[in-house]
Amino acid sequence: MSILVLGTVALDSVKTPFGFRRNILGGSAAHFSMSARLFTPVNLVAVVGQDFPGKHIKFLEEKGLILTSLNRDKGKTFRWEGKYEGDLNSALTLNTELGVLSTFQPTVSAKQKKIKYIFLANVDPDIQRHLLGHIHSPRLIGLDSMNYWIHHKRKELLRALKLIDIYVANDQEARSLSGETNLLKSARYLRSLGPKMILIKKGEHGVLFYSDKFIFSLPAYPTDKVIDPTGAGDTFAGGFMGYLARAKKLNAAVIKKALAFGTVAASFNVEDFGMDKTSRLTLEDLEKRLIRFRNCVVF
Amino acid sequence: MSILVLGTVALDSVKTPFGFRRNILGGSAAHFSMSARLFTPVNLVAVVGQDFPGKHIKFLEEKGLILTSLNRDKGKTFRWEGKYEGDLNSALTLNTELGVLSTFQPTVSAKQKKIKYIFLANVDPDIQRHLLGHIHSPRLIGLDSMNYWIHHKRKELLRALKLIDIYVANDQEARSLSGETNLLKSARYLRSLGPKMILIKKGEHGVLFYSDKFIFSLPAYPTDKVIDPTGAGDTFAGGFMGYLARAKKLNAAVIKKALAFGTVAASFNVEDFGMDKTSRLTLEDLEKRLIRFRNCVVF
Repeated sequence: MSILVLGTVALDSVKTPFGFRRNILGGSAAHFSMSARLFTPVNLVAVVGQDFPGKHIKFLEEKGLILTSLNRDKGKTFRWEGKYEGDLNSALTLNTELGVLSTFQPTVSAKQKKIKYIFLANVDPDIQRHLLGHIHSPRLIGLDSMNYWIHHKRKELLRALKLIDIYVANDQEARSLSGETNLLKSARYLRSLGPKMILIKKGEHGVLFYSDKFIFSLPAYPTDKVIDPTGAGDTFAGGFMGYLARAKKLNAAVIKKALAFGTVAASFNVEDFGMDKTSRLTLEDLEKRLIRFRNCVVF
Repeated sequence: MSILVLGTVALDSVKTPFGFRRNILGGSAAHFSMSARLFTPVNLVAVVGQDFPGKHIKFLEEKGLILTSLNRDKGKTFRWEGKYEGDLNSALTLNTELGVLSTFQPTVSAKQKKIKYIFLANVDPDIQRHLLGHIHSPRLIGLDSMNYWIHHKRKELLRALKLIDIYVANDQEARSLSGETNLLKSARYLRSLGPKMILIKKGEHGVLFYSDKFIFSLPAYPTDKVIDPTGAGDTFAGGFMGYLARAKKLNAAVIKKALAFGTVAASFNVEDFGMDKTSRLTLEDLEKRLIRFRNCVVF
């Protein structure tokens, strides 16, 4: 089953202890797509400006993404500038230029309205809800957000959370929205807001999954090659949703394996800048590392 | 096979968001023993002062610990006072009184010199080496330390690390001693100091195991009941070493299961103050939770 992902396609400038890259391809929807595409066709819903390089469009096309609803609007492409220091576990945002994102109204084709697997990557919760209004009969909806919306558009975010199945948050966001420091208590609170499944990303510490039926927890894939963690969370979500869409069914075993695939996809993402690593992957690469990962956690 | 553990037996005063306890039984060797005893007989090598309450001695005896080498010296028992705030993941030490610990010279009986499984819990690295000098033919030696010794007795600690098999450190200590922020790089560096097995405890984020043969990583047991984490690391080490001593053999499968038992033991420890929870456990309790834990991490 194909996936539709709404989010950002951006030009990122990133500095880490291992180098600096200016205006490389980034954004929540782009990172998500780069891992989800390994499992299933991905429809990208986003906006870029007139300054967006044609080579990036060509690159996304070559990766097999369906770009029918990637709009090119008047104005500048969304830009993010950030840096990582020390343990590279959290980014320091240096600058954000919304550009065309500030007036973004997503539209989708008649065919895309029938897509069953939807992921609302991080954008304004009003835009997320707007898009959902166009989808005819979604089977599974995931949503990611960020601290900015938790603080500035809490009411709108809470409204969006009532409409979705899977809320993907990082640990800071989970604590911030729930007011709980313990992550299991956070997850339980977030569950009470609507989503049946709560997925808390903990960066280098892995992931916690919570539902009424079961709890699941995985460490990150142990790696000493962390070059640029930008987009790791979206890459995780892409691997997770991608596997679910490919599996077509939803039970504990499928969800657990999807979490493992997400973990493994994210572990590749951090190994190089931007999408330099994930854009070169095959499903076989993920499957091979999944076996190694299993040996690292199964007792 | 029985275990010999060297370390502290202390009187702890602990404040957490859930209450305050004054002069409760604590210390690295005591916490270690409380979980190791579930697997195998434990010989406790430590010192207390004349102020040490007889009821604590009786309590340790009732838990089946072998107290032949628990000395009572002239002076005061080692006392630690600390508090936890926020996410309860790290303690703030308010006060430390070494008392009899400052002149501690451990001695062991002729029978204890023949013990094969040795754990050197956190005390001065010179004391740890002194004790090792008395052991005839140890099969497996574990060692824990703390930041204080890394900074103030680095040379002595490095000397001790050359004599042992398993170095148990928390993430801060591992980073501090290795100078590496990435934990896998830290582990590799610590391995180069001598110990064949490196075990990095990450508190609420679980554990990372490193050896030349394999890497293993587990999250913590997901729990929302964290009352007092004091001694969780020692409880972990007790479950880990206890299982190894009981298993008598050493291979990847045994080590992985020992890490899981350590994780589960630590998860009980945090559920109440001091040893209130771990002192009431049976091996069956650990085994039951191990099965639940397996369902939380196996995909």
